Amino acid sequence: MASCLIGRQLSLCVQKNLWLNSAGCRYVSKAAAKTQVEYDYDGPLMKTTVPGPRSQELTKQLGDIQNVGAVNFFCNYEDSRGNYLVDVDGNRMLDIYTQISSIPIGYNHPALLKLMTNPNNLSTFVNRPALGILPPENFPDKITESLLSIAPSGMTRVQTMACGSCANENAFKSIFIWYRNKERGHNTPSEEELTTCMTNQAPGCPDLSILSFMGGFHGRTLGCLATTHSKVIHKLDVPSFDWPVAPFPRLKYPLEEFSRENAQEEARCLEEVVEDLIVKWRQKGKPVAGIIIEPIQAEGGDNHASPDFFRNLRNISRKHGCAFHVDEVQTGGGCTGKFWAHEHWGMDDPAEIVSFSKKLLTGGYYQKDELQADKPYRIFNTWMGDPSKNLFLVEVLNVIRRENLLEEVTRSGKALLNGLYELQAQYPGLLSRARGQGTFCAIDVRDAATRDRLLLQARDKGMLLGGCGDQSIRFRPALVFKEYHVHIFLNIFNDVLAQNK
Amino acid sequence: MASCLIGRQLSLCVQKNLWLNSAGCRYVSKAAAKTQVEYDYDGPLMKTTVPGPRSQELTKQLGDIQNVGAVNFFCNYEDSRGNYLVDVDGNRMLDIYTQISSIPIGYNHPALLKLMTNPNNLSTFVNRPALGILPPENFPDKITESLLSIAPSGMTRVQTMACGSCANENAFKSIFIWYRNKERGHNTPSEEELTTCMTNQAPGCPDLSILSFMGGFHGRTLGCLATTHSKVIHKLDVPSFDWPVAPFPRLKYPLEEFSRENAQEEARCLEEVVEDLIVKWRQKGKPVAGIIIEPIQAEGGDNHASPDFFRNLRNISRKHGCAFHVDEVQTGGGCTGKFWAHEHWGMDDPAEIVSFSKKLLTGGYYQKDELQADKPYRIFNTWMGDPSKNLFLVEVLNVIRRENLLEEVTRSGKALLNGLYELQAQYPGLLSRARGQGTFCAIDVRDAATRDRLLLQARDKGMLLGGCGDQSIRFRPALVFKEYHVHIFLNIFNDVLAQNK
Repeated sequence: MASCLIGRQLSLCVQKNLWLNSAGCRYVSKAAAKTQVEYDYDGPLMKTTVPGPRSQELTKQLGDIQNVGAVNFFCNYEDSRGNYLVDVDGNRMLDIYTQISSIPIGYNHPALLKLMTNPNNLSTFVNRPALGILPPENFPDKITESLLSIAPSGMTRVQTMACGSCANENAFKSIFIWYRNKERGHNTPSEEELTTCMTNQAPGCPDLSILSFMGGFHGRTLGCLATTHSKVIHKLDVPSFDWPVAPFPRLKYPLEEFSRENAQEEARCLEEVVEDLIVKWRQKGKPVAGIIIEPIQAEGGDNHASPDFFRNLRNISRKHGCAFHVDEVQTGGGCTGKFWAHEHWGMDDPAEIVSFSKKLLTGGYYQKDELQADKPYRIFNTWMGDPSKNLFLVEVLNVIRRENLLEEVTRSGKALLNGLYELQAQYPGLLSRARGQGTFCAIDVRDAATRDRLLLQARDKGMLLGGCGDQSIRFRPALVFKEYHVHIFLNIFNDVLAQNK
Repeated sequence: MASCLIGRQLSLCVQKNLWLNSAGCRYVSKAAAKTQVEYDYDGPLMKTTVPGPRSQELTKQLGDIQNVGAVNFFCNYEDSRGNYLVDVDGNRMLDIYTQISSIPIGYNHPALLKLMTNPNNLSTFVNRPALGILPPENFPDKITESLLSIAPSGMTRVQTMACGSCANENAFKSIFIWYRNKERGHNTPSEEELTTCMTNQAPGCPDLSILSFMGGFHGRTLGCLATTHSKVIHKLDVPSFDWPVAPFPRLKYPLEEFSRENAQEEARCLEEVVEDLIVKWRQKGKPVAGIIIEPIQAEGGDNHASPDFFRNLRNISRKHGCAFHVDEVQTGGGCTGKFWAHEHWGMDDPAEIVSFSKKLLTGGYYQKDELQADKPYRIFNTWMGDPSKNLFLVEVLNVIRRENLLEEVTRSGKALLNGLYELQAQYPGLLSRARGQGTFCAIDVRDAATRDRLLLQARDKGMLLGGCGDQSIRFRPALVFKEYHVHIFLNIFNDVLAQNK
């Protein structure tokens, strides 16, 4: 293993042989010179097709226990490093999907390994507390060092949860409680409310709704799933709530070339539809208590909207007294070049609630003061998160700052998007709609079947990518994905595309 | 710290001074002689009232970030050992609540600390995978060693999830998918189903229901919460589903003295109500796809029912084609003297689904083969559990077997219940309805205010207990709670009761 690890100098030599070979190269990597990359590998190295024989054997074994239809292959996480995921057959792949966008600073980062060897940290892993009743001594400090140090504008309160779905479920509950207290004008429920809620009936369990967008993804538990509208496979056969669904603008890319048409499309969605739905659902007796939206629809196909769209939507939420809930589960954590994607909107008061998970290592949500539930035990569960994940997050944030990773992401993201523009110019029948912010990029492929084939061919050449939407490829590298990694990717992807002309 | 740790011999001396002093003692501890308890303390040691000054300071600090209304005090988990929780003011308390019943083998168990120092395990903590697509090499083995080694009768499939609520939410989804496939007679949905599900409408999102019991607790996310009916504070202001709620039998204790009345009460609940509700909800167009129940209602007040009740309910579920879902989130893990509380029913085919969390350290559920979703990505999320928790669980199960902890629980449980019987005989105006299985015991107090006062007074004397239901105290010690710990408890509790005569 150690023989494959390379230092900075070697990596600079290696990259010269890559993208530089292909036509039209205009990239020179300056990024690598700045940081230590000793814990990374020098490039992909494939020994078998994927899944290889050992992965197939393990898949068969696991198949007796679980549905393994989604398993790609089995991994050797011990040997994985930085941007490279190693599988159980010894294949080493450049990972541009990072466990569905959930690995912030690559595999086995030395800072995280070091944390594990500190004996002072052992007890945090071994004794998982019920955080809501018996928090550990360092909990306020650790949460201040970690989550509060990156709190969105206007938010000083944060609640951890075990995962993204639990984060959104509990954020919805905060919204409903806040909304009903507003409606009542005080916090004291009636006798009828106290009685009816015990059997799921109104007024105790009121007919409130959350407005969401077609193409949005907010999780798969029953509450979240009622706001998720990206794929049939998530929703079919599961009972749901009659909540309003607005169209998400379908923009033309590159955004700067179609600003007039895109502005019209966004206005149509907001004025004609969102406001209408809010009025209609109020009339139906199911008032919209909150609006949930992703800054970039991820699972639904990497659909973007302009800062103006979000600012206007925020105003609509204010006008109608609905809470504005920005779901940053996939966009948060630095991959757009800012810590939160909503920072690109340039607002002091972006939302009532911002939820997160994945790269933040713990689920949870920030909220404005007035959204915090008025009584204890209204928002509660046994674990309320996991302090061992906060420990890791403190280190991840240190690394992001120390290594200027947000700047790196901006730089790599530009290189990646420019590379995608060039490829779509080179393969116009195959690729279109290259788009992105930071390294949070995507490109459309001719059709779903071709997209799926490209993903498999890229994997066999040592490059892990993910699909999203009907026919898109999404790029979700870790924050340590540098310009020279972009070049490795573009070079290999170019080969794959040439096969599919 | 080390000076407070004691060996077996000393602890045997110490206990002589405890319960033996109080009137009517009939206990002799034989348990302690059998196992190593070097990592435990010799008894409670209180330095301040609780919360002490340092806890108060930290509560104030955390109050700027979160609602701290439920925080009892802050803990020093490093110094906590075995059955004793140490707080930040140096108070050492005998913990009979164990983080809402979620600590299986006490604090800082040497076997778990040892696991953390094994360098082979580091990578499992540092690299959290997306288990559903890229599992680690040892995942099938670890899940076989841990969860499958304790699988309920008739179940060979298990799915991990991050917490108990996610476990139940996904179990419900499995039930709905299975039920709809049965209704269709095949797995191919209609075009109408595919279209309607995207906007939450029937038939794609069908009006199916889960039948639950009054007093039951199954979690707090929106799907789970629709089956939870234990306290107003959990449910008020949160939209819900119109799902049927049956009465849970209200038995008289001790069960063996009231078997005839109790059997009548159980028959009334089952025949007159459960079957009626199933028929009624089918007629309403909201068929009951599944029935969820706890073997002992915990949060709702430690309500028991007989094995006959559960066997009959299981038969009703079969008769009406509903899945039977046993929620063992609180009862599972050995605290009733068997690994699963439903084992006390003596059935070969106890359920379609058994869900778990808490003492199992990971959420999840077992299911029968036919309940497994027919396609990948129907039951899915980013993390699908956490392999680092499986590592711990393997060790916990080793300790349970090596130290015969299920036998210990049976022995301590008998001592505890006998002690409670004696106390309620001694304080008939104060205590009633002592009940339990293993150490999963409870007793009722005259009224809620007195119950709450007793809990605080016990805490100030170094004993952590929890409330449940309207006026019950619940006992939820770890599996390493021995007979001599029972005596320590009974002795202190006797003092508290004497104050409240």
